[in-house]
Amino acid sequence: MRLAPLLLSVALASGLGLATAPAFAAGATDQQETRIPQASFATAERLREQALESDLGYRIVESLTTEIGPRMAGSEADARAVEWAIAKFHELGYDKVWTEPVTFPKWVRHGESGAVVGDHAQPLTLTALGGSPGGSVEGEIVRFDDLEALEAAPEGALAGKIAFVDYEMERTRDGSGYGLGGRLRSRGPSAAIRAGAEGFLMRSAGTDLHRNPHTGNTRFDEGLEPIPSAALSLPDAEQLTRLLALGKPIRVRMDLDVGWDGEYTSQNVIGEITGSSRPDELVLIVAHLDSWDLGTGAVDDGAGIGITMAAGKLIGDLERRPARTIRVIAFANEEQGLVGGRAYAEKYAGEVTRHMIAAESDFGAGRIYALSSGAPEYARGAVKQIAEALAPLGIEYAGDAGGPGPDLIPFAGKGLMWARLAQDGTDYFDLHHTPDDTLDKIDPEALAQNVAAYAVFAYLAAEAEGDFGSAPKDE
Amino acid sequence: MRLAPLLLSVALASGLGLATAPAFAAGATDQQETRIPQASFATAERLREQALESDLGYRIVESLTTEIGPRMAGSEADARAVEWAIAKFHELGYDKVWTEPVTFPKWVRHGESGAVVGDHAQPLTLTALGGSPGGSVEGEIVRFDDLEALEAAPEGALAGKIAFVDYEMERTRDGSGYGLGGRLRSRGPSAAIRAGAEGFLMRSAGTDLHRNPHTGNTRFDEGLEPIPSAALSLPDAEQLTRLLALGKPIRVRMDLDVGWDGEYTSQNVIGEITGSSRPDELVLIVAHLDSWDLGTGAVDDGAGIGITMAAGKLIGDLERRPARTIRVIAFANEEQGLVGGRAYAEKYAGEVTRHMIAAESDFGAGRIYALSSGAPEYARGAVKQIAEALAPLGIEYAGDAGGPGPDLIPFAGKGLMWARLAQDGTDYFDLHHTPDDTLDKIDPEALAQNVAAYAVFAYLAAEAEGDFGSAPKDE
Repeated sequence: MRLAPLLLSVALASGLGLATAPAFAAGATDQQETRIPQASFATAERLREQALESDLGYRIVESLTTEIGPRMAGSEADARAVEWAIAKFHELGYDKVWTEPVTFPKWVRHGESGAVVGDHAQPLTLTALGGSPGGSVEGEIVRFDDLEALEAAPEGALAGKIAFVDYEMERTRDGSGYGLGGRLRSRGPSAAIRAGAEGFLMRSAGTDLHRNPHTGNTRFDEGLEPIPSAALSLPDAEQLTRLLALGKPIRVRMDLDVGWDGEYTSQNVIGEITGSSRPDELVLIVAHLDSWDLGTGAVDDGAGIGITMAAGKLIGDLERRPARTIRVIAFANEEQGLVGGRAYAEKYAGEVTRHMIAAESDFGAGRIYALSSGAPEYARGAVKQIAEALAPLGIEYAGDAGGPGPDLIPFAGKGLMWARLAQDGTDYFDLHHTPDDTLDKIDPEALAQNVAAYAVFAYLAAEAEGDFGSAPKDE
Repeated sequence: MRLAPLLLSVALASGLGLATAPAFAAGATDQQETRIPQASFATAERLREQALESDLGYRIVESLTTEIGPRMAGSEADARAVEWAIAKFHELGYDKVWTEPVTFPKWVRHGESGAVVGDHAQPLTLTALGGSPGGSVEGEIVRFDDLEALEAAPEGALAGKIAFVDYEMERTRDGSGYGLGGRLRSRGPSAAIRAGAEGFLMRSAGTDLHRNPHTGNTRFDEGLEPIPSAALSLPDAEQLTRLLALGKPIRVRMDLDVGWDGEYTSQNVIGEITGSSRPDELVLIVAHLDSWDLGTGAVDDGAGIGITMAAGKLIGDLERRPARTIRVIAFANEEQGLVGGRAYAEKYAGEVTRHMIAAESDFGAGRIYALSSGAPEYARGAVKQIAEALAPLGIEYAGDAGGPGPDLIPFAGKGLMWARLAQDGTDYFDLHHTPDDTLDKIDPEALAQNVAAYAVFAYLAAEAEGDFGSAPKDE
C-alpha cells in the first residue's frame, strides 16, 4: 500500500522521467516483459571474445596485491588501496571516479601465538578472529564436535577453561559448506562465554590441510564480556584432538596482541562508464577493496576488483556505449561487517529504483558456472537471454538460486535486485582468509572467463528494455 | 696394502670368528658370491604381507609427532624425544636398547619477521636458516637468479644491501632438484658476505606454493663475519620479484631473534633385535629422531623413525630370528650437520666390518620404487635377490644408483656399505623443513609399504651368507 507513492517519489528524486520509469508492480498483470534488443548480442559476443583474450583482469589483481599487498580495513594499507583504486579507475579511462566515506571502529592485530603447555609442550598455529579482544589465557581444553554441542554446555561448565570446537567444514562447489563454518566463527565465542570459558578456539572454517589458520570476523552478543577468540590451522586442530585422545588433560596458552583502536574512515571507491541513452539508470558490478591481513587478498577479493574493473573498462572501450551506466564499486571494509555496503545502502536508500540490477564478485577466482537472479517473472526472460550469451563460457541459467553478494545484502534489503554469477568455489576455502591467499593461486585463464562473464552480463543488462525488479521495500 | 691386517684385527676385535668372516678383498678372484638361502624367502614373504596389513609404522609416527611434536636438536623437546624413543623401543620388545651421547653447539630460534618497507610496505613470510646469527638488518634488495650469479658479484658490490637469490628448485621424483637448492642454502650466505651484503635472503629450497618458508642449515666459511640469513616462502619470493619488477628500489627489513646458545648433549637411541646365529654381525636400518622446529617432523623424519622401528619390531616378532642382528638407530641432530651420524662413525670406526650393510629412511613417506646399493660385484646377486622379494611392492632393482642416507655418510666414508630404498619424493619438498610437515601429510598405506620394504630388506640382509662389502677404508 505504501509502495506506489514511494516508488513515484523515488523515481522523481532520482531525476528519472516517468516515461523511462518502468512499471514496477511485479504483481500487475499488464507488466511488460523486460527484453534485451537482439542488436545488442553481436556486441556482447565481441566483448566476450575480447575479454577472453585479455589479461587485464589478472594485471589489475597483480597490481593491487603486489603494490599494496594486504589491506586490512583501517590499516595504513587501506588508505594506499583507496589511492590505488582511484588511480586505477582513472588509468582505465572511467568517465567518473569518486569516493564515499565509510567510518568504522578500527581493529588491529600486532601479534598472536599459541602453544600446548605441559608434558606435550609444542607451538600451535592460530590466528585471532577479527573483533577478538587481546589478552593471554591459559586453560584446559574442552573439545566440542560442533557449535550445537558447545551451545548445549551448561552455564559455568567451562569455568577457567578454553572451549575448542573442532567442526569440520564441508568442501562444496557453491560454498554452502561455509554456512556452518562461518556460523561457528560468528556465534561460537558468545556460546563459550555463556558456558564460562576464558578463551575460544575453533578449527578454522576452511578445507585445506596447510599450516595456515583462517581468520575472519566474529562478534559478541550484547551484555557478554568478550574473551580471546582464535582459529587453529586445520593440522593444529587435528593435533589438538589427537593430544586430547591421549586421555589426559591438555592445557593451552594463547597470547593475542589484538584489539580495538579508535575509529577510522575509509572510502568506497566508485568508477562509472556513462550510459549512452539512459545514463541515470545503473547496472552495478561490485567487489570489495579491503582484505584480511594474513594474505595479500588475491582471491578475497583482489580477484573481484580485477574482474569488475576490467569488465567495466572493456565496456568503456566499446565504440557504442550501452544505454545504461555501468557503475563499478570497490567497497571498503567488507570483511568486518559489510561496512562499505551498509554505507552505500544508507546513502542511496532513496535511489533503489535506478539501480537496475547488481552483481558482486567475491568468491575467488574460479570459473563461473551459473547465472541466477531474484528477478521477477517479467524480467526472467531477459536474465535467460543473458545466460544464453554466457553459455559459450560454460555458464548455465540457474533460476533464482543463491542471493546477493555480501556487499549487496544491505541494499538488497532495501529492494535492490541482484544477479549472481556463481563461481566454482571448490578450492576457495583452502585459501579464504589465510596467509595463502596470494596471487599465485589465481589461474589467469579462469580469471579472464570471469571478466568475460561480467562484461557480457553488465553490457546486456545495461541494454535491456525494462527493469529487473529493483523496487524500494520495507525491511 | 694396509687393508688386510686392519680387517683381520677388526674382525677379531669385533669378536667374529675367522670361520664366519667373509673374504673381504673385493678384487680377489676367488671371492665367493654372497647369497641369501632360498629357505629365507618364505619368511620374507610372510613378513612383507604382515607389514602391509599393519599400521604400526603409522602409529609410531603418530605417537612421536603428537606427543613430542617438533624436536629441534638442543631444544627441551629433544630430551623428551630421546625418552620417547627409549620407551618406544622397549614397548616394541627390542632385545637391547641404549643411548650414546652426541654433543653439539645449540642453535635457538625465538622469533623472526620480515617486511618490505616504504611505498609498498607489507610483511614477508620468512624463516631464519639454521646457524644464522640473530640481528636486524634493513637494506635495498639486490636479486640474483642463482648462486652462480651471486658468486659472480664483485667484492663490495652489495655493501649495505641484502642479497636475494630467487633460484627455483626443480620438482623431481628422486629429489635431485634439492642438490642445487640445498647448495644455495649452504653456500649462499658466504657468497653474499664476500660481496659485502648485510643480509641474505633466498627463495626457499622447496617446490610448494604455500606461505610456508623452508628452513634448513647453512654454514659460513671461515674468516667471514656471519650475516642474518633467511629463506622466504615461495609466494613471498615471487612477490619480492614482482615488486622489484616495478623498477624502483625495494627495501626489506628482517629481524631474526635466533643464534647460538652454548652446548647441548643429546643421544643416539639404539634398539636391537638380536640375531639367532651371527648376532655380532649387524644390519642397520636407521633414521633421525630430531626435526626442525617449524613443523612436527612427520615426513622429516618421523616417517623414517616409524618405518625402521616398525620393521625391526616385525622382524623381532618372527618365530625364528634372522642370523644377524638388526640394529635400528634413531640418530640425534641430523639436521644441523649429521652430528649423530658423525658421532656413531667415530665410536664404531674400528667395527666397520661387522656392520654388514645399512639403509636409512630419511626422504619422507612416499612409496619406495627402487633398491640400490654400492655393494661390490660378488654381493650384487644377493642385492638382486632382495630386490626380487621386494618386487611385489612395486620396487625395482636399480644397481648402484644413489648413495648412503645422510646419517650414514660419515660411516660410509669409513667403509660402511649402504643400500638405498628409494622413495618417491615428488611431493617431499613441498613439506620439507616447513610448518606444513605434519602427520596429516602421511598416507598410511604408503607408509606400510615402506615398513614392508625395510622389514624384507633387513631380514634378508640378515640372513645372507657372505658380506656386502663393508670394509675399512682410508678417508
